[in-house]
Amino acid sequence: MNRQIVLESIPEGMPVPDNFSIKEAPEPEIKEGELLIKTRFFSVDPYMRGRMRKEYSSLPPFEPGKPLEGAGIAEVVKSLDAEFKEGDLIKGNFKWQEKQLIQAKDVSRIGKYIHSPADYLGIFGLTGLTAYFGLQMIGKPVKGETVVISGAAGGVGTVAGQISKIKGCHVIGIAGSEEKVTLLKEELHFDQALNYHNEEWEKSLATAAPQGVDVYFDNVGGDISDAVMRNLNQKARIIICGQISTYNSEEVTYGPRIQSILLEKRALMQGFSVRYYSEHFEEAIHELSNWLKEGKLVSRQTVFKGIEKLPQAFIGIFEGKNTGKCIVET
Amino acid sequence: MNRQIVLESIPEGMPVPDNFSIKEAPEPEIKEGELLIKTRFFSVDPYMRGRMRKEYSSLPPFEPGKPLEGAGIAEVVKSLDAEFKEGDLIKGNFKWQEKQLIQAKDVSRIGKYIHSPADYLGIFGLTGLTAYFGLQMIGKPVKGETVVISGAAGGVGTVAGQISKIKGCHVIGIAGSEEKVTLLKEELHFDQALNYHNEEWEKSLATAAPQGVDVYFDNVGGDISDAVMRNLNQKARIIICGQISTYNSEEVTYGPRIQSILLEKRALMQGFSVRYYSEHFEEAIHELSNWLKEGKLVSRQTVFKGIEKLPQAFIGIFEGKNTGKCIVET
Repeated sequence: MNRQIVLESIPEGMPVPDNFSIKEAPEPEIKEGELLIKTRFFSVDPYMRGRMRKEYSSLPPFEPGKPLEGAGIAEVVKSLDAEFKEGDLIKGNFKWQEKQLIQAKDVSRIGKYIHSPADYLGIFGLTGLTAYFGLQMIGKPVKGETVVISGAAGGVGTVAGQISKIKGCHVIGIAGSEEKVTLLKEELHFDQALNYHNEEWEKSLATAAPQGVDVYFDNVGGDISDAVMRNLNQKARIIICGQISTYNSEEVTYGPRIQSILLEKRALMQGFSVRYYSEHFEEAIHELSNWLKEGKLVSRQTVFKGIEKLPQAFIGIFEGKNTGKCIVET
Repeated sequence: MNRQIVLESIPEGMPVPDNFSIKEAPEPEIKEGELLIKTRFFSVDPYMRGRMRKEYSSLPPFEPGKPLEGAGIAEVVKSLDAEFKEGDLIKGNFKWQEKQLIQAKDVSRIGKYIHSPADYLGIFGLTGLTAYFGLQMIGKPVKGETVVISGAAGGVGTVAGQISKIKGCHVIGIAGSEEKVTLLKEELHFDQALNYHNEEWEKSLATAAPQGVDVYFDNVGGDISDAVMRNLNQKARIIICGQISTYNSEEVTYGPRIQSILLEKRALMQGFSVRYYSEHFEEAIHELSNWLKEGKLVSRQTVFKGIEKLPQAFIGIFEGKNTGKCIVET
């Protein structure tokens, strides 16, 4: 048995279980320089929706009929490379498949810091690094400033909010349920958290940010962002990290034009990808690791068990079901 | 006779002649530290529309019943300050009025560079400096890149396009008439110029920018910007310098959401005000002056004669009637 999760068809709008299927992959035969690995943890991320299209955007589209792929943690079962041995835990980009071959040069060993392996997908993975570098490179929060985070209970949002607290900011999270609001305030120490399903939430935002918003870490877009934009301060910085509210739209969505606000407020808005900062990943992981050890940062995950749960975990992201980093453990 | 131009009422939508009136101001009586001046040239700028509202934005609103004000060049008629003498040409912020008193500390003498005095409102004024610093601080055009400029035949646009040419870029101007297109191509040496009134203009933009758009210097906003946004390159930079298409709107305007494009292209969009860079004005004026002397830069103006023409000149900006810097000579 070597199960794989295949993209059966490109979702139209919201992804549904029928867009995915579980198949049997052939047993792999290992060659020199390769590793035979067994995947242990998969990272499940909103950005993957952008690869489930016909068009090439910043990453190539997934091909229907082939397994999906993404960041993961795996264990080396057999190595034909001098650098790795059986039992090593590695991180890399893997097919959504139980056993597979991988070029040794494309992966790296984990274990330098003593944490749960899944943290290498969450807080030390592209998720945590996205929060870290989005703030550092674009948001540049200064002590005493007000930071607003949309999708605050998600993988990136939970880390971005906590880092903003470490920087001494007044941090307001926006999320989609009372449960998430409680999590943000009570477990993750956000100063305020707002449920955008409450009709009066925009008023609450103005009350929660009486000094206005200096940094907006946007994972969501749409109406939520429109409301935040109406509360910006002069020289505000807006990190466009995700736009999950629009990922399932087949067509261009419309909203109030924001350029006049950016002009009046002399504000900066920038699309962000963590991939541009890979040469600084090690130092970032070191700092994140220290914060974790000191208890300043809490790693929050939703973990599904079994490779067959990958589609459900992925769909759950768009239903707002998960909190923190979404991971599937095989 | 000491005529002044008064804001009679706040325009509703497009400004009309009735929003302005010409009145007689009292003869001023000079005191110690003051200058009695006669205004010679007035700068007429789109941003002034933003001060014809009830709300305070980045500048205080003009008060109905009082004279308007803005950048100008004046001649000293009488001085009770040791630094200035009769006949000096000065620049400063003046009432739209023929004769007036001004504090000597609020103005500066012009004449360091030998040019037409009106150039101190245009190419060496906030107009030229806006083009210069918008490109330098946000656009950062690199040789070989493609720069698109909306409102290209306006005061800021004509300078921004020419500076982009000096930087070795492929420069495309967008303007609202065939006459302006000809001006941009034949007199100001833009590589391409497009008339947005032509139905096919967005296709022409894609043809004119086969490599995509790296820098967008936006003076206009609205549909024109929507089209440019669809042609952005990775890591594009967008200078939000003006949004003249929306200045006369009483309500928020709607359009396609742009955050998804910024995200996919990892692009930067920033609202710009030249006022933040005043400590670097002198070096910028020096460089602009050299370019002008070397013939790399052409100063383009529309000059109206007579203080009574100020309302007409101002309204003309929104009717797309002027090219280059709009100036009224008293």
